[in-house]
Amino acid sequence: MISGYAAMGKNQPLVPWQYKSRPLGPNDIEIKIDHCGICGSDIHTIDSGWGPTQYPVIVGHEIVGRVVAKGAEVQDHAIGDLVGVGAQVFSCQKPDCKNCRRGHDVQCSHAVYTYNKPYPDGERSKGGYADAVRVDANYAFSIPTAIDPREAAPLLCAGITVFTPMLHYKFKTGDRVGIVGIGGLGHLAVQFAKAFGVSVTAFTTSETKREECVKLGATQVVNLRDAEQSKTASQSLDYLIVTTNSPHTDWAQLISFMDVYGLIVLLAAPETELKLKPLSFLANNVGIVGSLIGGIKEVRAMLDFAAEHNVRPWIETLPMDQCNEGIQRVRDGKVRYRVVLSN
Amino acid sequence: MISGYAAMGKNQPLVPWQYKSRPLGPNDIEIKIDHCGICGSDIHTIDSGWGPTQYPVIVGHEIVGRVVAKGAEVQDHAIGDLVGVGAQVFSCQKPDCKNCRRGHDVQCSHAVYTYNKPYPDGERSKGGYADAVRVDANYAFSIPTAIDPREAAPLLCAGITVFTPMLHYKFKTGDRVGIVGIGGLGHLAVQFAKAFGVSVTAFTTSETKREECVKLGATQVVNLRDAEQSKTASQSLDYLIVTTNSPHTDWAQLISFMDVYGLIVLLAAPETELKLKPLSFLANNVGIVGSLIGGIKEVRAMLDFAAEHNVRPWIETLPMDQCNEGIQRVRDGKVRYRVVLSN
Repeated sequence: MISGYAAMGKNQPLVPWQYKSRPLGPNDIEIKIDHCGICGSDIHTIDSGWGPTQYPVIVGHEIVGRVVAKGAEVQDHAIGDLVGVGAQVFSCQKPDCKNCRRGHDVQCSHAVYTYNKPYPDGERSKGGYADAVRVDANYAFSIPTAIDPREAAPLLCAGITVFTPMLHYKFKTGDRVGIVGIGGLGHLAVQFAKAFGVSVTAFTTSETKREECVKLGATQVVNLRDAEQSKTASQSLDYLIVTTNSPHTDWAQLISFMDVYGLIVLLAAPETELKLKPLSFLANNVGIVGSLIGGIKEVRAMLDFAAEHNVRPWIETLPMDQCNEGIQRVRDGKVRYRVVLSN
Repeated sequence: MISGYAAMGKNQPLVPWQYKSRPLGPNDIEIKIDHCGICGSDIHTIDSGWGPTQYPVIVGHEIVGRVVAKGAEVQDHAIGDLVGVGAQVFSCQKPDCKNCRRGHDVQCSHAVYTYNKPYPDGERSKGGYADAVRVDANYAFSIPTAIDPREAAPLLCAGITVFTPMLHYKFKTGDRVGIVGIGGLGHLAVQFAKAFGVSVTAFTTSETKREECVKLGATQVVNLRDAEQSKTASQSLDYLIVTTNSPHTDWAQLISFMDVYGLIVLLAAPETELKLKPLSFLANNVGIVGSLIGGIKEVRAMLDFAAEHNVRPWIETLPMDQCNEGIQRVRDGKVRYRVVLSN
């Protein structure tokens, strides 16, 4: 049996709960969980904010721990290895899967995400607010020795989510990049972007974060609530990474920051619809693209890149049994900048 | 005095009207208009659909005619030359203009579009439903001799609008491209895309256009109102060119056609907001980008490309004094596929 903390219904606090672990398949590994970050997705899911959640649900997809068991065909990992798991635990990796074949395993039609998603046998995946988890070995990533295991946890979802578009769109010196929302994702985005050599403008609504943004690597900091400051950023960006899921985002304002052919990259999913004035982004050939986590190749590249360029989350740690307190701190916007729960 | 047909107020029929032409500046040319296409933008403007129009307005920005006068510094054109004018009549072309310098003259902060837009002196530009027009010589394009002057007219706005993103995003053999809305823009988009060597899927709601889509060069035709056909197009496209300005466009359906990292290119501006479910385009890293006409370089490239690859609009012609009948045919969706008014 695996012991964890589950939401038993919408908007309810997490409570201790046990479930029988899935059978250990030949390509699976079992991980004894040491640490798990708290991600905004956890809260959307607890709240059924993205659609009905199937309760009970154990959330958590920024997992770090040790391999304690492995299937007969697992070659990459040894018992005792330190590994991390992000927001995905399975893809088919079959040669006839057009998405796996192209490295788009995130979009594999058989993909299983780490919690609240059905396996082929109908069972729902369960996440990392627990003492253990079983996952496909392809999604257990070796943690570079340079990275503290607690700090590795938020890299597995927040980190890869901000890193993937930077890799895909080939960020390079000379590019002008904005980051909106300096939180769990955003504070990593500033660091990764800086390490790619771009000029970084941090956009925040919290004047109190100004100094920290500079410390994280921002060249400029713009307070979105200050009309004067916002005006100076007009048409100044090639890319704008949007990490906020606020339903109050002023899209016309964000679009105004984009230079001709600029791309807004949306990483967070607000629970409400985006409403966009067509002429506002037509006028400058601006685009809005989505980006969802990252696949096997990208996660490996991200961990190496973070180790090499010293990109690390700023974390607050709590014992796993204080998960509800951690969640409340996230809801209140008090965290600087990621909570990591530890067993 | 220039004689034309003007809208004197919102939703009113056009009536004969005269205005005093702008002074002929050293870089200007005067064109005696032979032909002018009817563009959807004309109707949005007559209707104040994109915001308040300043009446009286003479619309029309698919103009072909002969040079009848030129300023002292104009070198490119001779009296009697056949030239075309699209949706823009001026950009500053100064070395300190960051947009002109990069070839983004469409976005020059001093840009003047062909009608209903203010010149620096405050006068509003007036378009091609008239016997003459004066424009900056940079925006009078030589028409290749291979192209019939009447057929050249729709290329100047509809043609360049669909061509620009194909050039910018480097369409190439192997790309899978959809075109939504087989009308004035769409029927040219199918032809241009085909000439770029891509596989073209035409999306229409008019079953009666199926055969014509194939004739235009579509590899496949999908009726958007047929659920079965739409399903076969699921995740099948790298690009989707959206030429329709219908307020009823089902964006979730269009997004479902996009493969991973696919781009929807919006060329028309519906008068209502776009409403998008964030997760629908996040899931497959899909993007929506706008694209507005094309600059001096692109128009020249487009005209050469159209001449070489035999891309031609299918037109219906009417005398200029029947402009109201032509507009009504566009409103009724009866045109196959562009009306050209002739003096």
